[in-house]
Amino acid sequence: MADFQTIARQFVEFYYNTFDSDRNKLSALYRDNSMLTFETDAKLGTKNILDKLTGLPFNSVKHQVATLDAQPSNESGGILVMVTGALLVDEEQRPMNYTQIFQLLPDGTGSFFVFNDIFKLIYG
Amino acid sequence: MADFQTIARQFVEFYYNTFDSDRNKLSALYRDNSMLTFETDAKLGTKNILDKLTGLPFNSVKHQVATLDAQPSNESGGILVMVTGALLVDEEQRPMNYTQIFQLLPDGTGSFFVFNDIFKLIYG
Repeated sequence: MADFQTIARQFVEFYYNTFDSDRNKLSALYRDNSMLTFETDAKLGTKNILDKLTGLPFNSVKHQVATLDAQPSNESGGILVMVTGALLVDEEQRPMNYTQIFQLLPDGTGSFFVFNDIFKLIYG
Repeated sequence: MADFQTIARQFVEFYYNTFDSDRNKLSALYRDNSMLTFETDAKLGTKNILDKLTGLPFNSVKHQVATLDAQPSNESGGILVMVTGALLVDEEQRPMNYTQIFQLLPDGTGSFFVFNDIFKLIYG
């Protein structure tokens, strides 16, 4: 199996490519016990998380990752991932800085799912 | 036992108060399997982490927390904590934005220790 750094990079690339092309397809990455905190809004489970992500008030979005760091999060193969970056929505010219963290857990079939997801915009 | 949100808030307050008053005392919060990623520098274990934190090139620092979010990180009482904020070092007038995440794990005696710690400055 690939090391945690490689898995983290592959996950982040896949996640934002999917987010920026078709947010509906992110459902494959969550499970019913997954948690999302998006700004101040907390959601539990694939359906509530997808409703939140697909309902965000923009049509197009482009994430640009600036930094990506990862650490093992437990002894069962979990991976903690932290991203900082910028995003552009719709016709907006000025990117917004954000930071996002994920805990990825093995799903038992050789893949990973998102157990924890916290997203925050950075102001100032 | 207090809920995870309360523990996260108490931890963050204690962590930065300790960091800003006497960084040496942070050693009580780490264990030999703790991981720190400080910007691009990765450290394992209490001694290496403390050497890094106490060796940072400033005399005084003041952290100001802007946002604090937490989620349970496993079924054994672990807590994932994400902080965004600003910090001022020495005579510098302009605060630097940062984001920091921790995974806290129960230490078996009713307290928690820092298993994962990732710190990044936010530019731009």
